[in-house]
Amino acid sequence: MTDLDGLLSGLPSWSTDPADLARAGVDRSGAVPDGLPLVVVHATGTDDVVRTVSHAAAHGIPVVPRGAGSGVSGGALAGSGTIVLDLSRLNRIVEIRPDDGIAVVEPGVITADLDRAAAEHGLRYAPDPASAAFSTIGGNIATNAGGLRCVKYGVTRDSVLALDVVTGTGHLLRTGRTTLKGVTGYDLTSLVVGSEGTLGVVVGATVKLLPVPLATATATAYFPDTRTAVEAVTRLRRRGLRPSTIEFLDHATLTAIDDAQGGDLGTRGRAFLLVRTDGYGAEDEMAAVVEVLKATATVVETSGDAAAAEALLATRRQALPSIERLGRVLIEDVVVPTTRLADAVAGIERIVRDTGVRIFTFAHAGDGNLHPIVLVEDDGPPVGGAVDALFALALDLGGTLTGEHGIGVLKRDWLAAELGGTSLDLQRRIKSVFDPAGVLNPGKAITDR
Amino acid sequence: MTDLDGLLSGLPSWSTDPADLARAGVDRSGAVPDGLPLVVVHATGTDDVVRTVSHAAAHGIPVVPRGAGSGVSGGALAGSGTIVLDLSRLNRIVEIRPDDGIAVVEPGVITADLDRAAAEHGLRYAPDPASAAFSTIGGNIATNAGGLRCVKYGVTRDSVLALDVVTGTGHLLRTGRTTLKGVTGYDLTSLVVGSEGTLGVVVGATVKLLPVPLATATATAYFPDTRTAVEAVTRLRRRGLRPSTIEFLDHATLTAIDDAQGGDLGTRGRAFLLVRTDGYGAEDEMAAVVEVLKATATVVETSGDAAAAEALLATRRQALPSIERLGRVLIEDVVVPTTRLADAVAGIERIVRDTGVRIFTFAHAGDGNLHPIVLVEDDGPPVGGAVDALFALALDLGGTLTGEHGIGVLKRDWLAAELGGTSLDLQRRIKSVFDPAGVLNPGKAITDR
Repeated sequence: MTDLDGLLSGLPSWSTDPADLARAGVDRSGAVPDGLPLVVVHATGTDDVVRTVSHAAAHGIPVVPRGAGSGVSGGALAGSGTIVLDLSRLNRIVEIRPDDGIAVVEPGVITADLDRAAAEHGLRYAPDPASAAFSTIGGNIATNAGGLRCVKYGVTRDSVLALDVVTGTGHLLRTGRTTLKGVTGYDLTSLVVGSEGTLGVVVGATVKLLPVPLATATATAYFPDTRTAVEAVTRLRRRGLRPSTIEFLDHATLTAIDDAQGGDLGTRGRAFLLVRTDGYGAEDEMAAVVEVLKATATVVETSGDAAAAEALLATRRQALPSIERLGRVLIEDVVVPTTRLADAVAGIERIVRDTGVRIFTFAHAGDGNLHPIVLVEDDGPPVGGAVDALFALALDLGGTLTGEHGIGVLKRDWLAAELGGTSLDLQRRIKSVFDPAGVLNPGKAITDR
Repeated sequence: MTDLDGLLSGLPSWSTDPADLARAGVDRSGAVPDGLPLVVVHATGTDDVVRTVSHAAAHGIPVVPRGAGSGVSGGALAGSGTIVLDLSRLNRIVEIRPDDGIAVVEPGVITADLDRAAAEHGLRYAPDPASAAFSTIGGNIATNAGGLRCVKYGVTRDSVLALDVVTGTGHLLRTGRTTLKGVTGYDLTSLVVGSEGTLGVVVGATVKLLPVPLATATATAYFPDTRTAVEAVTRLRRRGLRPSTIEFLDHATLTAIDDAQGGDLGTRGRAFLLVRTDGYGAEDEMAAVVEVLKATATVVETSGDAAAAEALLATRRQALPSIERLGRVLIEDVVVPTTRLADAVAGIERIVRDTGVRIFTFAHAGDGNLHPIVLVEDDGPPVGGAVDALFALALDLGGTLTGEHGIGVLKRDWLAAELGGTSLDLQRRIKSVFDPAGVLNPGKAITDR
């Protein structure tokens, strides 16, 4: 502990209370750390971050940056011998410049709070992770969070213009710019986004804001089977339609919602799509969407107003909570080319039959991004084989291990299979450029050698 | 020359003819290299690239990758002692997968050719640099090219999903993935985009394709002065409108077009905007745009059909050719926050008054991206001071040196002023990771030490 004394005496806020440490070491992944962190430091400003990282680098102590702890891949997992650097108190919306379409924020800002502040100016922060109500912008940046609107508006990376980052040497690095375009120097902003705190600690971000769409329309549809539902997504694309959201729920998920809510969704069809359009012409575009859906759907419902749209959206929103009440879950996050989505769902159904593990699948169908929710049952079969089979399936279909949740610790054994040696080696050397002492969230994202 | 013998004997196509070398060493920047390259290698496949770069690295010979040579910042400038690696024969569109919304292309594909091929499937490649008819995808990737539609559809980086890259060690690196989302590993794709051939030679790219918008509407407007025109752009944003194109021309440019075409545009107003909307509701959105424009414009014209839209667009298209007939030009490319656009134009007018150098300014106004065209007159004042003042102006206004053309050689003296030492040092070390021998396009983009 003596290594820490010099650090802690210069910091305004930290704790070594075991209860605090226990909370600071875990996230929503369900992964269990190998012990308690040394200390949790509550950063109150950039200086605290610089001081903590510099001290850690000098003494070779791992630092685990942390926002809301809402990650599901174990990116914020902190075990024995680590310093947890909690950034949740850096939660100021520093500036909104509506006519420039940008906001400057600290990393601990809750994503939905930024969106609300933007809305006062008729603007919004386009990315909308399902966790927006409790995850932070810093965490969204760490994992390059996605969400329901990505199919039209892109992921977190597409909305981040500039970052203030404390690198592993304790230097304050400014990446990007506050203009909407620019190509001076390499794109360090995109490099840091999605790096899960392994290249630097984000202490500030400049993000884009877009006008709130002037209109939105919503429809839900039930299909006789998955393949028919996925084909409808393809036909939407072929018609040149550009929905802002295309969500898929499989039959297991519909049934789980029914069990939780006492409904009968599972009787309406074996697969579900929710489609939204927005902007000028949203209603006209939705009319074209509905025409496509009706060609093969058993039931199609559209919203007449905002309240009705909210009722339709509720089905999608209930998916995860309805499954989570059945027990502990692993929230997976694979992506396949959109035309392989039905093959992916069929493959998952095969894994369920082969292993006996229960998996509920919903997907951002427009992006090919599936969230198979793996139920970990105390008296059920071990899930490891099913998860491995899932990753193998995604790669076999030309896909990727993670669309928007990150590698964390849960997927690191599969990293080399996707990236290959040349890329992984190069990425490790890039990490060394940012973090020569290897103290920033070691073992996460790209893993150690 | 003996250093080259081992290389050239293994390559199918190259030239040391002085006329070929002279052509291979220059681009559209007007910059003059310090002599002739050693050889121009015409790559016919990835193997030729691997072989050339490996040989160059082993012998410490600089390699300058080249597409169409249409860059305007000197990124493809190749002087004495260099190998020019011409990729223009790698021009196959390998695959279009319309239902996945992606295309796989070689770097020498002309951008407009990809767009045409996509159009056969009702799709388009969203970035539309003004050079699309003659620049290559590889060149667009090197500079992170923008264009007229960026304000709604993003720049080249936003459309590139995966790259095949030969690094400075001659290794073939695969970056990214062919799915629409993914966060496995660091974003090497975005890092390579805009790196002007200094991190690797791009030999293949997987890019996104989007549906062609179902409708498009176009308007042009003339304003009594620049500030009124720019304020109209702000009011479009405040109304929640999302045009796909917002182009500005200043009075000097309008007059240059009149001189070239015999027209009277300059009498209609002292500043010009062209605005396009697209997608479902394009006509309704344009009606709202026109209402905003009419509040302060002296003249507003809208298109009734495609031919009329083409006629309106012609004014914008004639801007650069009309200026170029006056003499050699430097095509500048600064970006400022959109609310500072009028200040930027006013600053440029001040530079014109102070230096006597003639500058014609047009801009992608929705992005704040100005193209001040600096006329280099044989009997006029030297332009160096005016260009320096222009860069200082952009940085003073919180802007950047280049929005979509790259640093090349022309802007490298200003690089440190924008990036600062911490960032530039880190970027140089990233270059060393990709190119330890320092042979890939040295002196470009981030400059040597």
